[in-house]
Amino acid sequence: MDSAFQHLSQIVQPSDLHRFSDKELRDLANEVRQAILQNVSRTGGHLSSNLGTVELTVAMYASYNIPPDKVVWDTGHQAYPHKLLTGRLPRFDTLRKHKGLSGFLRREEHELDVFGAGHAGTAISAAMGFAAARDRQGTTEKVIAVAGDAAIASGMSWEALNHAGELGTDLCVVLNDNRMSIAPNVGALTNYLAKLRSRPLVQNLARKAKVAIERLGEPAVRAADGLRHGITHYLAPLETGTIFEEIGFEYIGPVDGHDLPTLLEVFRNVRDMNYPVFVHAITVKGKGYEVAEEDARKWHGVVPFDLAACEMVKAAGPVTFTQAFGDATIECAEEDPKVVAITAAMPDGTGLAGYAKKFPDRYYDVGIAEQHAVTFAAGLAAGGMRPFCAIYSTFLQRAYDQVLHDVCLQKLPVRFFLDRAGLVGDDGPTHHGVFDLSYLSPLPNMTILAPRDTTELREMTHWMAKYDAGPTAVRYPRGSSDERLPESRTSIALGKSEVIREGKDLTISAVGSMVSVAYEAAAGLAAQGIEATVINARFLRPLDSETLIGSVSKTKRLITIEENMRSGGFGEACRNALHDAGMGGIPHRLIALPDSFVEHGTQPILREECGLCAAAVIAEAVRLVKAPSR
Amino acid sequence: MDSAFQHLSQIVQPSDLHRFSDKELRDLANEVRQAILQNVSRTGGHLSSNLGTVELTVAMYASYNIPPDKVVWDTGHQAYPHKLLTGRLPRFDTLRKHKGLSGFLRREEHELDVFGAGHAGTAISAAMGFAAARDRQGTTEKVIAVAGDAAIASGMSWEALNHAGELGTDLCVVLNDNRMSIAPNVGALTNYLAKLRSRPLVQNLARKAKVAIERLGEPAVRAADGLRHGITHYLAPLETGTIFEEIGFEYIGPVDGHDLPTLLEVFRNVRDMNYPVFVHAITVKGKGYEVAEEDARKWHGVVPFDLAACEMVKAAGPVTFTQAFGDATIECAEEDPKVVAITAAMPDGTGLAGYAKKFPDRYYDVGIAEQHAVTFAAGLAAGGMRPFCAIYSTFLQRAYDQVLHDVCLQKLPVRFFLDRAGLVGDDGPTHHGVFDLSYLSPLPNMTILAPRDTTELREMTHWMAKYDAGPTAVRYPRGSSDERLPESRTSIALGKSEVIREGKDLTISAVGSMVSVAYEAAAGLAAQGIEATVINARFLRPLDSETLIGSVSKTKRLITIEENMRSGGFGEACRNALHDAGMGGIPHRLIALPDSFVEHGTQPILREECGLCAAAVIAEAVRLVKAPSR
Repeated sequence: MDSAFQHLSQIVQPSDLHRFSDKELRDLANEVRQAILQNVSRTGGHLSSNLGTVELTVAMYASYNIPPDKVVWDTGHQAYPHKLLTGRLPRFDTLRKHKGLSGFLRREEHELDVFGAGHAGTAISAAMGFAAARDRQGTTEKVIAVAGDAAIASGMSWEALNHAGELGTDLCVVLNDNRMSIAPNVGALTNYLAKLRSRPLVQNLARKAKVAIERLGEPAVRAADGLRHGITHYLAPLETGTIFEEIGFEYIGPVDGHDLPTLLEVFRNVRDMNYPVFVHAITVKGKGYEVAEEDARKWHGVVPFDLAACEMVKAAGPVTFTQAFGDATIECAEEDPKVVAITAAMPDGTGLAGYAKKFPDRYYDVGIAEQHAVTFAAGLAAGGMRPFCAIYSTFLQRAYDQVLHDVCLQKLPVRFFLDRAGLVGDDGPTHHGVFDLSYLSPLPNMTILAPRDTTELREMTHWMAKYDAGPTAVRYPRGSSDERLPESRTSIALGKSEVIREGKDLTISAVGSMVSVAYEAAAGLAAQGIEATVINARFLRPLDSETLIGSVSKTKRLITIEENMRSGGFGEACRNALHDAGMGGIPHRLIALPDSFVEHGTQPILREECGLCAAAVIAEAVRLVKAPSR
Repeated sequence: MDSAFQHLSQIVQPSDLHRFSDKELRDLANEVRQAILQNVSRTGGHLSSNLGTVELTVAMYASYNIPPDKVVWDTGHQAYPHKLLTGRLPRFDTLRKHKGLSGFLRREEHELDVFGAGHAGTAISAAMGFAAARDRQGTTEKVIAVAGDAAIASGMSWEALNHAGELGTDLCVVLNDNRMSIAPNVGALTNYLAKLRSRPLVQNLARKAKVAIERLGEPAVRAADGLRHGITHYLAPLETGTIFEEIGFEYIGPVDGHDLPTLLEVFRNVRDMNYPVFVHAITVKGKGYEVAEEDARKWHGVVPFDLAACEMVKAAGPVTFTQAFGDATIECAEEDPKVVAITAAMPDGTGLAGYAKKFPDRYYDVGIAEQHAVTFAAGLAAGGMRPFCAIYSTFLQRAYDQVLHDVCLQKLPVRFFLDRAGLVGDDGPTHHGVFDLSYLSPLPNMTILAPRDTTELREMTHWMAKYDAGPTAVRYPRGSSDERLPESRTSIALGKSEVIREGKDLTISAVGSMVSVAYEAAAGLAAQGIEATVINARFLRPLDSETLIGSVSKTKRLITIEENMRSGGFGEACRNALHDAGMGGIPHRLIALPDSFVEHGTQPILREECGLCAAAVIAEAVRLVKAPSR
C-alpha cells in the first residue's frame, strides 16, 4: 500500500476522525478515494459504488461516535470506505483474496462490521433490531442504516421502513441515491426519487440558519446556543408530502453526497434528532474516476486494470455459462413469441443484456424484487406465456415461498435459470449457490436440471422452452465449462442421465460442474488400472434411478459428487434410490460441500479445499475399490 | 343450502349479474351475505373478512366482463363471495371439507380462480403477470387485483406496485381496507391509510359529474355521450400526493365498500381506464353480522356456531402447542429481561397475545412482513437481546434467505418457533408446514428441535431461551398433543434423543407429532409379539446418531416416521447416519409425506391417507420383521 496516505494511515477507528479539521477531512476523503482506486485496480473488486460513498462515509464517521454508534451498511458494495476508516488500510491489499478481507461486511472480520450483508435490502431491518435492542436496554447510541436506491425499492426495505415509521424510534436511514443498482435502476420509485432530486439541494445550512434565526429576532444566546437546533429546523423540508414523511420519517434532502461541508453539517445535526430521519444523499457512482463516472455499469465489478491508462481488459476466455444462457434465450425467443424473460436487477450478470436489446417488449427487469419476480413470472405463465426467470441461485432463496406456492403448487411452467450455482469464488458465502438442490428437491412438480457444460446448458434451455408440463429449474456455475469432456452428446430427455464413460470397477455419478471432475478422475483412475463408469446426472428431479441402479448393480460401488450441501442434495437422492432398490448396503462415498459456510477465495482453491476435485475423487475411489468387499 | 336464494341460485358465472338491475343486485348482495352466514355457521371457516367483501365483489362482477376479465384475489380469506358468484352455491356446504371446496382459491377448483392464493401479498404480482401476458398477446381483457390493507403493506405488494407504476399498463388494484389483518393492523402505512380514510368519500358521482359538465358549458352531446368519461375525471382526487399517485397510480377513494350504487358507478368507470388505477374501498370486517362487526378478530376464523344466538363455543380441549408456547414464553420473559418476541401479524395464531399484554414493550408485531421480521430479530440478537421469532412453518418460507444469511451465517441466537408444522388440516396445501425440516436441515449452525408433546415444547422453549451459541428452531403441529405417551421425562440436552420404550425386534425413531404414533404402534406390535424400541428424536440437527446406531445395531431394523417431505428430512438424515456407520444395508422403512401436495381435510383423515398413523407403522413393521433377514 502506498505510503502517501498521510491521514488515512493514522486511522485505527472512526473516532480518530474527530481530531481532524474539516479541511483535513477533505484530504482524508481524497486519500480514501485514492486507496480504493490503487487497490481495486490491483485486486479487482467493486469499484464504482465504493467511489460514490467516500464523502458520505467520511462525513458520517466524523459526525458520529462509532462505537457505540452503529452504522449498518446495506449489501456492502458500498462499504470499502468503511473498511478503510476502521483501520483496515494495512490489510486492504488482501481484499477478496482467499483468507483476506471480504468484499462484503462480515461480523467475524471486524467488530464495526456490526451486521453482515451480501444480498440487498437488509440494512434497515437489522438497524431496527439494533435500535429496538438499544431502547430495551436503555442505552443511547445512535443507529444508522445506509441503503442504495435499488435496495430501498426492495420489498424488505419497505417492510422495515413501515415498521420504523410506526415505532417512531431514534433511527437514521441514509439513502445513497446513485440512480443505479448494478445496472440503471427501475421501478416507479426511481421516477419518484428523480422528482425529489430536482428539488433545491440542502446547502449552506449554517449561513441560512443564522439568517433565519436573526430574522426571527431570537436572543443572541439562543442563536449561539441553539445553532444546531436552528439548523435542524432549517433541514426540515419546505414542502411536505414525500413518501418518507407520509410513513413517519423526517425527510432531509436532497443533499449532494460529495459536498463534504454540507454533509458534515447535516450529519452533525441529524445526530441530535431522536426520531426516524431519512437523509437523501445524491451520489455519483464512480465519482473521481472519470471513466467509471461515465460507465458505472462497466466499472461496477472489475478485474485488475491499468489505473493510469483507464483500461480494463476482461480476458476473452471460452464461452461462459452466462453467455450460453443469454444466447440460447435469444434463440428461443426468435423461435417462439411466447418466450419472455425476467430479471431482478441483473441484466448483465444473468446474461440477459443482449436479449433485452433485441426483445425490449418481452423483457422485464423488476428491480431487486425476487419475490415479485417469481410470482409475476407465475402470472405470465398462467396468462399463457413461457417465462424465463433468470435469478442467481442464492437470490432465488429470496423467493422460496413464491416458487413453492405460486409456481410448484399451481404446476405453472415457469423456467428458472439459476446462474452462480456452486462455489462462486471471491464473493464468498452470501453468494455461493450451494443450497439450491436442497431447497428445490422437496418441491412437488419441480423438474431440476444441471448441465455438464455450456453446450449442454444451451440444449437444456431449448428443451425447457418447450416443456410446458410444469416448472423447471436449471442450475449452472459461474465461469465457463471444462474442455475435457467428450464432445459426443445424446439429446436431452426428461429424467434421463447420460453415461459418458463405462467401466466395471465403480460408478461415479456427478452433477453439472462436477461431471468434468468425475471424468478427469476416471482418466486418472484408468492410469491406475481402475475402470470407472461416469454418469452425467443431468436431471436431479426426476432422478434417473434406472441408469444409476443398472450401473451400480454391475460395479457394486458408487461415488456421487455435487457442488451443493449434502443434506437434501443429489448424493442423498442417489442413496435413497439404491436403498429403495434393496441396494442400501452398496458402498457409497458421498462427496458434497461440508456442513459449514465456505469463505471466499478463487473457485479452484475453494473446490480443492472442499474435496470437489479429481484428486479427492481418485483417493476416495482407490479406497473404495481396495476395501474388502462385503 | 337454503332455497331462498332466489337471485344467487340463478348465477352460474359472473356475466349473469349483467341481467340484474341495480335493485336486484342489492338483493343479490343480501343473499350472498346470508349464504355465507348460514353456511359458515355450519361448516366453520373464515367469516368476518368475507362478510366485508360482499358489495365489493357484486359491484365488480356486475361491472366487468368476467371472463375474459380477470380478478386476482389476495389470500382468499375474502373470496367466498367470489366463490358464490361463480356458480359454487350448490357445493358451498362442502367448504373446507375433505374433497370439498377449498377455503382459498385454487386454479384446479374453478377456471375463474385464475390464481391460487394462501399467503398474503401475491395478488398484485400475479395480476401484473396476467396484464403483461395480455399486452404481449394483444388482447384487451381487464385485470384487477384485490388486496387487503395488511397484504398491501407486505414487501412483495410494494415490489409489485413499484413495477406496475413503472410499466404503466392497464391494471386496477382494489384495496380492501378494513383496518385489520387478522388482528388489528400495524405499521406506518396503516396510519397513512387512516389519513386517507378521513378524506371525503367518493359518492353521488353521476350527479356531481353532470353538474360539473354543465358548469363547464360543454355541449349537451358531450355531456350525454361522455358522461362516463366525465365521471372518470370526477373520480380523480382533488388533492394530489397520495403515495399511490407518487408511484404512478391514479388514486380513487376513499369509497364506502358497502355503498353498492357508488361502487357500481366507480367500477363501471374504472373499467374504462387503461392505466394503473388504485381504488381504495373502506369495508367493515363482519359487515351485516353485528357480533362479528364488533369483534372481527374473534370472528375471523370460526368453528361452527349458532347463527341466531350469535354464540360460538370453541371446545375447551387439552392445552394446545400454541398455548404451551405462549405460556412458556411468558415464563421465559419473566425470568429474563432480554427475551423479546416478534410476530408477523399473528398474535393470536402464534399464541403471543397473552405475552403481548403482559410485555407490550418487549413485543413486536411487524405486520405481514416475514422477511423484515427475521432480519429484525437478527438485529435484536446482534444487539444483545434474546429474540423469540414466532412464525408459522409455511410463513417462514417467506424469509428463507434471511434465516440463511442474517441468522445462520452470522450464528446469531434467534429462536424460531414454527407453529403449524406438519399437516394443518382444513387450510390445505398452502398452510401445511411440511417443508421446514427439509429447508432448515442444510443450514449450517442451525439447531432444529421438535417436541413429542406440549410439555416437551415448554421445556424446549426454556432450553432455547438459554441457548446462546447459535440459532435454534422448534417445529410443532397444530392442535394439542396425544395423551398416550408415558409421563416420565428426561431433560432436554443438545443433540440428545430420548428412548421412550425398548424392544429387541426393531427400532422406530420418530419426530415430534409422530412420536405418539410410534408409541401407539409399538403397543400394537407388542400385542403381536413384536417388541419395538421407540426413540423420540427431539433434535433433528444435530442428530443423535449415537443413540440411533446403538439401538439399530441391536434391533437390525429401522422405521423412521416424520410429518415432513421425504427429501432432506429426518429419515434421510437417519439413513445417512447409518450409512456412515457402515450400516447402510440395514432394512429401513422411511415413512414421510408423499412427493405431492396434500389437499385439505381434517388432520386425522390426511395423516391416515399419508400413512402417518399407527396402523401403517404396524403394517410396515410386520413386513420388516417377517422379511427374510440378510
